[in-house]
Amino acid sequence: MDKTLLSPIVAGMWRMAEWNLDVPARVRWIEQALELGIHTFDHADIYGDHAVETLFGEALKASPSLRAYLRIVTKCGIRLKSTQRGVAVQHYDTSPAYVRAQVEASLRKLHVDQLDLVLIHRPDYLMDAEMLAGTFAALTNEGKVAHWGVSNHTTSQFELLQAHHPLVTNQIELSPLHLDALDDGTLDQAQRLGLRPMIWSPLGGGRLFTGEDETAVRVRDVMQPMAERLGVSLATLAYAWMLRHPSRPHPITGSGRIDGLRDAVAALDVPLSTEDWYAIWTASTGHPVP
Amino acid sequence: MDKTLLSPIVAGMWRMAEWNLDVPARVRWIEQALELGIHTFDHADIYGDHAVETLFGEALKASPSLRAYLRIVTKCGIRLKSTQRGVAVQHYDTSPAYVRAQVEASLRKLHVDQLDLVLIHRPDYLMDAEMLAGTFAALTNEGKVAHWGVSNHTTSQFELLQAHHPLVTNQIELSPLHLDALDDGTLDQAQRLGLRPMIWSPLGGGRLFTGEDETAVRVRDVMQPMAERLGVSLATLAYAWMLRHPSRPHPITGSGRIDGLRDAVAALDVPLSTEDWYAIWTASTGHPVP
Amino acid sequence: MDKTLLSPIVAGMWRMAEWNLDVPARVRWIEQALELGIHTFDHADIYGDHAVETLFGEALKASPSLRAYLRIVTKCGIRLKSTQRGVAVQHYDTSPAYVRAQVEASLRKLHVDQLDLVLIHRPDYLMDAEMLAGTFAALTNEGKVAHWGVSNHTTSQFELLQAHHPLVTNQIELSPLHLDALDDGTLDQAQRLGLRPMIWSPLGGGRLFTGEDETAVRVRDVMQPMAERLGVSLATLAYAWMLRHPSRPHPITGSGRIDGLRDAVAALDVPLSTEDWYAIWTASTGHPVP
Repeated sequence: MDKTLLSPIVAGMWRMAEWNLDVPARVRWIEQALELGIHTFDHADIYGDHAVETLFGEALKASPSLRAYLRIVTKCGIRLKSTQRGVAVQHYDTSPAYVRAQVEASLRKLHVDQLDLVLIHRPDYLMDAEMLAGTFAALTNEGKVAHWGVSNHTTSQFELLQAHHPLVTNQIELSPLHLDALDDGTLDQAQRLGLRPMIWSPLGGGRLFTGEDETAVRVRDVMQPMAERLGVSLATLAYAWMLRHPSRPHPITGSGRIDGLRDAVAALDVPLSTEDWYAIWTASTGHPVP
Repeated sequence: MDKTLLSPIVAGMWRMAEWNLDVPARVRWIEQALELGIHTFDHADIYGDHAVETLFGEALKASPSLRAYLRIVTKCGIRLKSTQRGVAVQHYDTSPAYVRAQVEASLRKLHVDQLDLVLIHRPDYLMDAEMLAGTFAALTNEGKVAHWGVSNHTTSQFELLQAHHPLVTNQIELSPLHLDALDDGTLDQAQRLGLRPMIWSPLGGGRLFTGEDETAVRVRDVMQPMAERLGVSLATLAYAWMLRHPSRPHPITGSGRIDGLRDAVAALDVPLSTEDWYAIWTASTGHPVP
Repeated sequence: MDKTLLSPIVAGMWRMAEWNLDVPARVRWIEQALELGIHTFDHADIYGDHAVETLFGEALKASPSLRAYLRIVTKCGIRLKSTQRGVAVQHYDTSPAYVRAQVEASLRKLHVDQLDLVLIHRPDYLMDAEMLAGTFAALTNEGKVAHWGVSNHTTSQFELLQAHHPLVTNQIELSPLHLDALDDGTLDQAQRLGLRPMIWSPLGGGRLFTGEDETAVRVRDVMQPMAERLGVSLATLAYAWMLRHPSRPHPITGSGRIDGLRDAVAALDVPLSTEDWYAIWTASTGHPVP
């Protein structure tokens, strides 16, 4: 894959439906992200109860020249529980027919001819890797999708699908409040394969700022003075902690505020020391390294 | 390996000693299994306190023409605690001498010239993979064993032995009441290597029907009406749930009733939907997919 | 690597600072180890609060002819909390500059021209494998280090670094009181790659002899009569239990008493039976094998 497929910081569109922006405001929002060097936008078919891709696509339709400047990531594979859609039990679906249908729906809703990167949103126990890879190849050949990846996959699930089709990333959760990927081999695998992970909830879904649980308080008590010492915001420090990892992760923002994007971009210039990185790890785990 | 080495459903002989069948009844039982398309019979040296292979072998001796129609799987490697055999502490043994002795005993007891598939019953911490592979090769060359595999092995134990000798399967536990293999990489590895797993206790050892624990009740409450809707028995639905997995598992029956075999075979024609599969998973875990 | 790089038993220098030996006594201690066939000495930059390498090096300086007969293993990568060194939060550091600095300091303190084996002491979440491998290659080319390895690394961490530079061992904890490495894939990987592990705390840090917890008592109750039956000490039996593993581990002693080394070396001649090995495992886990 083109090493610059994804911008260092990726704008997460997850909550766009809550931002209540009219079409011109959406266009302006995208432009401001681009001005900050954020050219990649992270979607999923289901975001905003299936509404976000449409909202974003309306902006692209209103300002078609934007398309050339941005990269679109989206996901499919989750069937949300929905009376309207006739889904009684939330489940995953990576059947060829469903993946194709969702990709084609995303193209229509986003008003684009090609998706730059499509991820399987969650590991489907019923994924037939060979069959799914066939669908990847077909949609790639048709020009509908440029690259493929996964999200929330374990190392063995990743290895299984990767054996049948090249994957470019595993989008996973990581934050000072959620350290699993450091220990379960996910980031080792990413670094070994040279495949930069995408990171969701790099700020712990806001818990970093307002969480009252013991861990959140302990982490904030360490990070707040550290941020002040470094002259950056708490959010910027959290992004810097993430960016310090040698797998070279792409954090995904969640905020609708342009200042939220600025906090993330600012982290690209914060050279966090190893000791500071471990001080945050230590606060999160509640014990020093062995 | 011959892709049809094992029949889709495998008859488990574990409890044959409890069935109290005389020799003609045993012959008839085997014939009925064959008539249902079940040509593979799963043994272990220790089943029935070392009695089952002998019971089965007596039937083969009484009706030698049967041999050509069936495939025999057996296992070795467990030394049961036994005053008679001088074993004070139950343990595993995969030494060349022991594996050879058990294979040769199985051949004698079963009255056959070759075992179609022999499995190492449990992962032996003291397994010397290179040495054990040497024994596999020798017994293969002597025509005593056609194929080798393992049972209850983790992915790394499988990978270790597989590096020294081709293995054709990992026989593992899986059922709506026992989901570990879905998450620990075992089934990912099986699918990646194209090696169909064999499944023991696909009905949770009967707990599916009569278990009074919270999980069993919850699973039954979902599966019973689903079975009625699909017009199949609860057992058939459980087998269908298993067969739906893309690793193409071979469930092993446990029943001595021919109707028990019919329940399993019937599942081959039940096209379980993805949503139904996940409804059972959801009932078992007690929460929807993330 | 030279298959005899490490002697079967390795002398651990961890506590040398507590032994209160003057220089001639240190020389004599080393000579006695060599007379027992123990030619490998295990160090780390931080042992004895950074004092042990110096103590050992003073002996080598006093008796320079010893160097040709022994192999030196040391480790780096941990930055202990230390007011003196300006480390407020204990952490790991595998940056090129730090690894180089520590290797060069070890050479100076030990009064040797080359370290036979250097291990990364703990898995550093911030390890950039490619960059670290570059440092390994440079220090190897300069003749300062002959071989590289790691300690306390998971299988995926090992695989990551191994993909960039050959590693010869993973030094891990294992004892009748600490069984993790048997189940987490570490020893499977070692055997698969033919890389003999080094074992720290093979006696459970003394807990085997004096621990009053339920597990220690249970293990001792099984091992004490077994040792008497075999005519060896409890320590020798623990070493024999370790040496029985097919990955062919190198246990590291901890004692300053020469009799402590003799206990370990004696184990090389104790052919522990499989059943005895599992009796100890069973006592440790508190249940028989499945």
